[in-house]
Amino acid sequence: MTAADVETPAPPAKRPRKPRQRHVVRRVRERASYDRSDAYAILDAGLVGHVGFAVDGQPFVIPMLYARDGDRILLHGAIASRLQQQLAGGVECCLSVTHVDGLVLARSHFHHSVNYRSVVAFGKATAVVDPAAKAAALWHFVDAVIPGRAADARPADRSELAATSVLLLDIVDVSAKVRSGGPKDHPDDLSLPVWAGVLPLATKRGTPVAAEDLAPGIGFPDYLASRATG
Amino acid sequence: MTAADVETPAPPAKRPRKPRQRHVVRRVRERASYDRSDAYAILDAGLVGHVGFAVDGQPFVIPMLYARDGDRILLHGAIASRLQQQLAGGVECCLSVTHVDGLVLARSHFHHSVNYRSVVAFGKATAVVDPAAKAAALWHFVDAVIPGRAADARPADRSELAATSVLLLDIVDVSAKVRSGGPKDHPDDLSLPVWAGVLPLATKRGTPVAAEDLAPGIGFPDYLASRATG
Repeated sequence: MTAADVETPAPPAKRPRKPRQRHVVRRVRERASYDRSDAYAILDAGLVGHVGFAVDGQPFVIPMLYARDGDRILLHGAIASRLQQQLAGGVECCLSVTHVDGLVLARSHFHHSVNYRSVVAFGKATAVVDPAAKAAALWHFVDAVIPGRAADARPADRSELAATSVLLLDIVDVSAKVRSGGPKDHPDDLSLPVWAGVLPLATKRGTPVAAEDLAPGIGFPDYLASRATG
Repeated sequence: MTAADVETPAPPAKRPRKPRQRHVVRRVRERASYDRSDAYAILDAGLVGHVGFAVDGQPFVIPMLYARDGDRILLHGAIASRLQQQLAGGVECCLSVTHVDGLVLARSHFHHSVNYRSVVAFGKATAVVDPAAKAAALWHFVDAVIPGRAADARPADRSELAATSVLLLDIVDVSAKVRSGGPKDHPDDLSLPVWAGVLPLATKRGTPVAAEDLAPGIGFPDYLASRATG
């Protein structure tokens, strides 16, 4: 995702047969995968994705909570009304999810890089309107973030479902891209007196903060204690 | 960014005067800011953004390293050739940056939420072609991630600059959106026997991993030790 992404020239144009055009990775192709299980593992490790759509050529990218449900992505969140307006016939969307795993420090500016796992998924989003499907989606959202939570908290009632916007994105095309490991310096730079290596980065959970209005005697549930990150 | 985003109905349409249409936040407007200093603080705390652009109505969202330079964003990374091809006259882009600060656990599914800080910026991206400007951009990238690093590592040489793609995004319109604090439960739910509160999330740095080919005697520099996250 940095200069290191340009360090290895792409091989002569030889397009893979199966992947469709829009999701074919063009840079540093050896880091790419079109295997859904690779992409789904990266999606399932995430919480917030960035959803892109275009209105009259103007691109919009909105952060949204997501949860995978088979070959579909449930989307929920700051659904701008501009997106809602586009939904009648389904709107082409691009969901991108990225985990940054570390800073890769090379001896040269050029070979500095980032370790990451990313997914880019394409498909049409449609609004979920059926109340039962919406309720199921909310349940799935809550449990995808914290398994066990959905059964503990109160499910949505009718008026809440009416006020809830849920989108469904069918994953038509998907690709994953991963960089891992240490810096790949130019051989001439290995003797430079510069520290090189990786500074790992990870999302960590801090100390839980109970709600100010939490009733006395309600303990911290086991299903929360077991999960380190979102 | 979740059901909580729909819990507070938007006030009757009363558009702010200054912000232009495309970056006006439509949902939970009290969380929005059009103050550049708010947006820039969120941008400066980040590393990887999601850049959206459209080609013939097809949206693409690509994770890219970025660094702010005044009212401009330097972009660098997996610049798909499809984006490069669009650049001749400048291409409309939307950059979205999101920090997830915590999981907000309410007593009901509906009021579950996420604490976050996000920015959506709009402007046209153009390619940086001047080698000196490219070199300065690379220097700025390295130092934006780890202050002090650029002076330590070897700057790019001519052939590396020729192989480097840098984009410049002028920030024309920008908005920030922030949610913080605990759950906002329905009053009727406060007596439910369900733990409620926030599980804070933050990006933390792990133990540095030296490159396998690091020459003996090269110590870990002070400027790296002082920085907790990317």
